[in-house]
Amino acid sequence: MASVSSGNQDCYSPLELFNRIAVQGELVRTLKASSAPKDEIESAVKMLLSLKTSYRTAMGEEYKADCPPGNPAPRGNSAPKADEEEEDFVDPWTVQTSSAKGVDYDKLIVRFGSSKIDKELINRVERATGQRPHRFLRRGIFFSHRDMNQVLDAYENKKPFYLYTGRGPSSEAMHVGHLIPFIFTKWLQDVFSVPLVIQMTDDEKYLWKDLTLDQAYGYAVENAKDIIACGFDINKTFIFSDLAYMGSSPAFYKNVVKIQKHVTFNQVKGIFGFTDSDSIGKISFPAIQAAPSFSNSFPQIFGDRSDVQCLIPCAIDQDPYFRMTRDVAPRIGYPKPALLHSTFFPALQGAQTKMSASDPNSSIFLTDTAKQIKTKVNKHAFSGGRDTVEEHRQLGGNCDVDVSFMYLTFFLEDDDRLEQIRKDYSSGAMLTGELKKELVDVLQPLIAEHQARRKEVTDEVALRFMAPRPLSCFQ
Amino acid sequence: MASVSSGNQDCYSPLELFNRIAVQGELVRTLKASSAPKDEIESAVKMLLSLKTSYRTAMGEEYKADCPPGNPAPRGNSAPKADEEEEDFVDPWTVQTSSAKGVDYDKLIVRFGSSKIDKELINRVERATGQRPHRFLRRGIFFSHRDMNQVLDAYENKKPFYLYTGRGPSSEAMHVGHLIPFIFTKWLQDVFSVPLVIQMTDDEKYLWKDLTLDQAYGYAVENAKDIIACGFDINKTFIFSDLAYMGSSPAFYKNVVKIQKHVTFNQVKGIFGFTDSDSIGKISFPAIQAAPSFSNSFPQIFGDRSDVQCLIPCAIDQDPYFRMTRDVAPRIGYPKPALLHSTFFPALQGAQTKMSASDPNSSIFLTDTAKQIKTKVNKHAFSGGRDTVEEHRQLGGNCDVDVSFMYLTFFLEDDDRLEQIRKDYSSGAMLTGELKKELVDVLQPLIAEHQARRKEVTDEVALRFMAPRPLSCFQ
Repeated sequence: MASVSSGNQDCYSPLELFNRIAVQGELVRTLKASSAPKDEIESAVKMLLSLKTSYRTAMGEEYKADCPPGNPAPRGNSAPKADEEEEDFVDPWTVQTSSAKGVDYDKLIVRFGSSKIDKELINRVERATGQRPHRFLRRGIFFSHRDMNQVLDAYENKKPFYLYTGRGPSSEAMHVGHLIPFIFTKWLQDVFSVPLVIQMTDDEKYLWKDLTLDQAYGYAVENAKDIIACGFDINKTFIFSDLAYMGSSPAFYKNVVKIQKHVTFNQVKGIFGFTDSDSIGKISFPAIQAAPSFSNSFPQIFGDRSDVQCLIPCAIDQDPYFRMTRDVAPRIGYPKPALLHSTFFPALQGAQTKMSASDPNSSIFLTDTAKQIKTKVNKHAFSGGRDTVEEHRQLGGNCDVDVSFMYLTFFLEDDDRLEQIRKDYSSGAMLTGELKKELVDVLQPLIAEHQARRKEVTDEVALRFMAPRPLSCFQ
Repeated sequence: MASVSSGNQDCYSPLELFNRIAVQGELVRTLKASSAPKDEIESAVKMLLSLKTSYRTAMGEEYKADCPPGNPAPRGNSAPKADEEEEDFVDPWTVQTSSAKGVDYDKLIVRFGSSKIDKELINRVERATGQRPHRFLRRGIFFSHRDMNQVLDAYENKKPFYLYTGRGPSSEAMHVGHLIPFIFTKWLQDVFSVPLVIQMTDDEKYLWKDLTLDQAYGYAVENAKDIIACGFDINKTFIFSDLAYMGSSPAFYKNVVKIQKHVTFNQVKGIFGFTDSDSIGKISFPAIQAAPSFSNSFPQIFGDRSDVQCLIPCAIDQDPYFRMTRDVAPRIGYPKPALLHSTFFPALQGAQTKMSASDPNSSIFLTDTAKQIKTKVNKHAFSGGRDTVEEHRQLGGNCDVDVSFMYLTFFLEDDDRLEQIRKDYSSGAMLTGELKKELVDVLQPLIAEHQARRKEVTDEVALRFMAPRPLSCFQ
């Protein structure tokens, strides 16, 4: 299928490149439409990005689908830049970057039109809650937002708001990266003391993957147990499977239909890249992810109130769903949900890609033993260290691309210790083996504790979280 | 907007005609996408059909969208026929014909690939049930079917089947034409003694019309009362609003998602003519009309059985939904629903169009008084009579285009009397005024009796029919 070559496109003419991009783009769409294996899609996307870079280098301007390079337009200031970076690709199904540092998030903020979470906003959260900001805020892991100031306005004026996040349960296996939004959401629930709804999109996974309905629902319940093990308060938290909740809440379906009436195929085509070969289930699904953004989707919690502000913590790849939601909201008389966006959790092999739940060596799984954790970190965590100890001592390691260091920024709570490690590793005082040991020492107890809490979450506990009911924190 | 001219396209060149057809087709799609008033759409469709006829006359072949008339292809046998008829247009939203006799149903059977209900099939129904076939069967009003022999096989082998029909509740006003499928379905329920589910597509009407969700649901309940007044047995009948049932039956939603996974936008585009400007609600709706064709959408009636054969009596314009359903069924492991198709009930003004609930003079409404019925028939029923009494006596009237006579074929039970009227009117022995009086004498008591039964149907009765529950006729 799509082979990934590394830049031998320089021998093509601009027109040949233009045509190859068009065909490669079609290939990517076809692969996505046919739910091809993730790695095939990623290869094809990588090739597409590479072709576009070659095109930009050759032409001095971006590839435009409806503008073949026939006429030699004035190049002027936009002369070819050989060293120009490839553009990152981010949508809910594919995250691709060519940089070992990972996606360029500042560029993403500009491209998506969101706002940076700056020092001022973090200080305001601290003032409003009286709590030290979570390390994910302090370290820019939640880095972007939409309308967070509006949520804080509401909070300061004693107006209610609620949290909404979710997970697509594509398998039983969850890795530490999957916990990022939930760890942060639990903190938000604790410091603001607000209701939380968690959507398990088992219908989405049924539509996109080769799963039965029963499998998808089963994964939803199993994943819910791992989510519950993050410590959510049952009195403030409602977890729901779409397959179960849609059939037990006329209010939810009514909002889904309302949204579906106000979004055209043209719009979802533009936002999600759907094609005419996609199933009508995929095409209409975005409305189902949008509906929990509106409080009257949960009358058991909010009564008939449709004006309770929603705040959605999620990874930035989910933003397209909520750009659509925010576009629809005023047209159906509802407030726009606010958002807090996180960066992606890097794969052990490096920050170029998101992790894959289907590759056991690409991350630390929530079921890994202490020994597996140690082996995986030592064997697979991409190192920013030098080739030899002598060189490392002399030149120091590179924390910007070192995955063990990146993982520590996610999980090591102590800011001073993290800064010390950064200094020591960068200077060469700390060796790669020592850095990896620091990470193993953090991850082993973290995973062991999670496993202990997970064991307490029986089917019965999960189903109590998943029962539609009032939440005591909203009156 | 779209003006309907009557055949002055003869002065155009084939290429001009080709281009005008393309533009007019786009206009029809745009009008439909923007939910333009019905009469505007109908005018535009009429114009489109007229242009296509001119094209066929000029070119000796059908208009093909991707084949402009540039190259003078061999015309051969398909020489222009000046007298060729315009083609009828039938889809769930538009029925258009240029013939006062109405749509050519034999052609429709060929085009849709269904089977004619012939004498042999009618005899088989009579043998199987031991009942005289309903007048709608005897007179070809239900004229087409899919797999009815399979239903009879099942029935004769004591295997269960069930009936499914429905209505789109676009307003409170229902006319006698709306009752045709229900009158026939009640007869089927009586003679076969089987469960019946009736879908009120209030979500569809919300998606297509300028209605609120509450209005659409309100119409669903009001229309259900008129349907109940047809005499359905509460022990064998479940009536449901999509807006209410979707949110109270996980089994129903699961089937909707299953169907949505197995139908692409390309398919619904081909079947229903959707465009990229249509809402994702419209695009995914066909799965919701398909789902009741599968018995496990109703676990309260059929338990977990997914193999109970479904038989759908409906007007032929609904067939596209069930062609799609029959295409999907084997791919998701369910039996294909069987179908019985009816002709359209003609408007008082003539059989060229379906009636419009928004034009009070286009039909007899279920709320009309005896006086209104008399006035409407006398004033508006299109007559096949001659201009003067003398001419009529001499040449006789034309029953094929006379709407009063057509209505009698729907509602006058006595075959001999109907045949006598046909003879007398055709010979000129019966005058138009006398024919109209025959119809008024049939309609007045029919509507009065309906109104009396309708009065008995309280909100409480309607909600009992609409409560998900077991039906005693299935075990």
